[in-house]
Amino acid sequence: MTTALPFDPSDPVALTQALVRCPTVTPAEGGALVLLEQILSEAGFSCTRVDRAGVPNLFARWGAKGDAKTFGFNGHTDVVPVGNLDDWSVDPFGGEIKDGKLWGRGACDMKSGVAAFAAAAIDFVRDTPPEGAVILTITGDEEAVSTDGTVALLDWMAAQGEQMTDCIVGEPTCPEEMGDMIKIGRRGALSAYFTARGTQGHSAYPHLARNPLNGMALLMSRLAVHELDQGNAHFGPSTLAITTIDTGNTAANVIPASCKATVNIRFNTCHTGESLTKWLEAEAAKAGAEAGVEISVRVRVGGDCFLTPPGALSAMVSRAVQTETNRTPVLSTSGGTSDARFIKDHCPVVEFGLVGKTLHKVDEHVEVAHIHQLKAVYTRVLHDYFA
Amino acid sequence: MTTALPFDPSDPVALTQALVRCPTVTPAEGGALVLLEQILSEAGFSCTRVDRAGVPNLFARWGAKGDAKTFGFNGHTDVVPVGNLDDWSVDPFGGEIKDGKLWGRGACDMKSGVAAFAAAAIDFVRDTPPEGAVILTITGDEEAVSTDGTVALLDWMAAQGEQMTDCIVGEPTCPEEMGDMIKIGRRGALSAYFTARGTQGHSAYPHLARNPLNGMALLMSRLAVHELDQGNAHFGPSTLAITTIDTGNTAANVIPASCKATVNIRFNTCHTGESLTKWLEAEAAKAGAEAGVEISVRVRVGGDCFLTPPGALSAMVSRAVQTETNRTPVLSTSGGTSDARFIKDHCPVVEFGLVGKTLHKVDEHVEVAHIHQLKAVYTRVLHDYFA
Repeated sequence: MTTALPFDPSDPVALTQALVRCPTVTPAEGGALVLLEQILSEAGFSCTRVDRAGVPNLFARWGAKGDAKTFGFNGHTDVVPVGNLDDWSVDPFGGEIKDGKLWGRGACDMKSGVAAFAAAAIDFVRDTPPEGAVILTITGDEEAVSTDGTVALLDWMAAQGEQMTDCIVGEPTCPEEMGDMIKIGRRGALSAYFTARGTQGHSAYPHLARNPLNGMALLMSRLAVHELDQGNAHFGPSTLAITTIDTGNTAANVIPASCKATVNIRFNTCHTGESLTKWLEAEAAKAGAEAGVEISVRVRVGGDCFLTPPGALSAMVSRAVQTETNRTPVLSTSGGTSDARFIKDHCPVVEFGLVGKTLHKVDEHVEVAHIHQLKAVYTRVLHDYFA
Repeated sequence: MTTALPFDPSDPVALTQALVRCPTVTPAEGGALVLLEQILSEAGFSCTRVDRAGVPNLFARWGAKGDAKTFGFNGHTDVVPVGNLDDWSVDPFGGEIKDGKLWGRGACDMKSGVAAFAAAAIDFVRDTPPEGAVILTITGDEEAVSTDGTVALLDWMAAQGEQMTDCIVGEPTCPEEMGDMIKIGRRGALSAYFTARGTQGHSAYPHLARNPLNGMALLMSRLAVHELDQGNAHFGPSTLAITTIDTGNTAANVIPASCKATVNIRFNTCHTGESLTKWLEAEAAKAGAEAGVEISVRVRVGGDCFLTPPGALSAMVSRAVQTETNRTPVLSTSGGTSDARFIKDHCPVVEFGLVGKTLHKVDEHVEVAHIHQLKAVYTRVLHDYFA
């Protein structure tokens, strides 16, 4: 049993407000996916909750399963915590409109994006039913570990024979002005955890010990200045940062038995998580051998790099952005990671959304006019795609 | 008012037993210096307690102040803690004699040494009063920070116009057999505390931050392989050990603002604390400049290196050792630090004492026969010196 909505769901601003009012600090569902399921079901979408390990996820399809033309949108309704409530000048879950802006946690990242593509899809299938299908995948965990969010949706879709042929992720992508950037890829990310082990001893007799810090300092000094690559057509150079070296030895007359270090790498398509892991293992072994200690490394790949090379999808989104915002978007691969890193294994994917200036910040907000523009962009993409 | 002693103070074994029975875990006086003051006063020594900052110290002189021939002995009555009492098979403060050995904390390091030189000096000035003076300086803090022990005695002596012309420190010096080693110097020791400061940032954008770990790793990798010297006639090569590098950054996506490291150096006469401090400051500045961060260093010199070059004093002690133990002692500069590092600024100083195998250990003990030999060595030195 559902109750009638107090607003028009094809109004993306009203829908954003309703979503902001749902307390969805990651990974809480907070009523957001329940609301979207109701709206999309009433609009003729076939909806399925694909929850996994406590993470709420919503799959919605209009049209036939497995259609050769199936356009997808992806987004998330979870938000980062509000931090110190006293620092906010508005209720972070109020969804208030003031000075032409919509305020609240998730207003920018990315309940507005979800509202814009949901509203666009609802109008589009109602007004101009396409020959094809539209899929919306919306997760309740993009902001935390992301292991049971979009990944769970894609796993479930693969098992069900559900397939998107192209996809837009609705994350905020514009650094300064509405329409100034589309993301066509993202760098990969990994963290490498090194442990050096030697033989403890008295610092007065270093020749009787094997100092793990000698090997670690040698290894880190090499990694710090190593040029991973010079970048390529779509990516800047890959980067490496040492984030910590720790020993915890408080005795100045003792050479410690072991020490640890962590390195964080953001990498472009010149590398894979696997190739970098092999390189790091080789460097650790080499520095360890030179210093007479053992250095092991455990690598956690947060996401491989991906690129949807400029083509039909990015050209189509670019045209729509240009028409609706009168701005030519840059095709970029900058910035951190997003769920597009998972979707890229299923179909071509690009990201386009609002100006991201206030995301994760106190007094997060977005221009009301931009939400309307975003819906217009998504609508135009759908028209072009199924034309 | 003093009571009669229940033993003959010229018996070094009985005196060692009496001293071991004083609970003198550093810097407690435990009755040891009171006992020695009584014995030495009765033997005609002029005694003064030179306590400073809670540390008990005893100065004793036989003969005239400022005599051109004033032989000195130095030692300490404080001991390191016993550790786990259950691990001992004897009472650590019992002074028991068993199997030809005298057992207890301080039996080796160095109540036996103090007893041997006190007994030797008492017999010597009584039986063959010399033309000259004999000074005994005995401290209650050699084992802890040593800032108000022998240093306080030497400061007080300088203020009073008291001067030794040569000195033996009675620390255990023999590694294996009684008489196998005299120490004629010791390496210096310093600890250098480095702090690198940069600019915090996101590890995805290292070019926007300045990573202090890059500079620290560069600096430490250089120091670890730097050859300070190749040693010289009396010393092995100086050594450098990195003892810790610490950051404490738990976020793999953050480049830290600062990190710390500590280096311990043991140095020979090719260097001074001052010359090494300048070198470390220059290396820190250089690595910092190359890595674009600031690296500062604070150096604490534990003691400068010293050498009493082989000469009259060491030759005299060697002859005495050879005669009494039938063993030719090596003149060595090996091992850790001792209060000789302070005395070397006042007069030539060497160290000779018992076999140090059990010092600081559970069931510390020493051969009873060796205590008698040690007194004989010290007695022979006094005879030779004033002959």
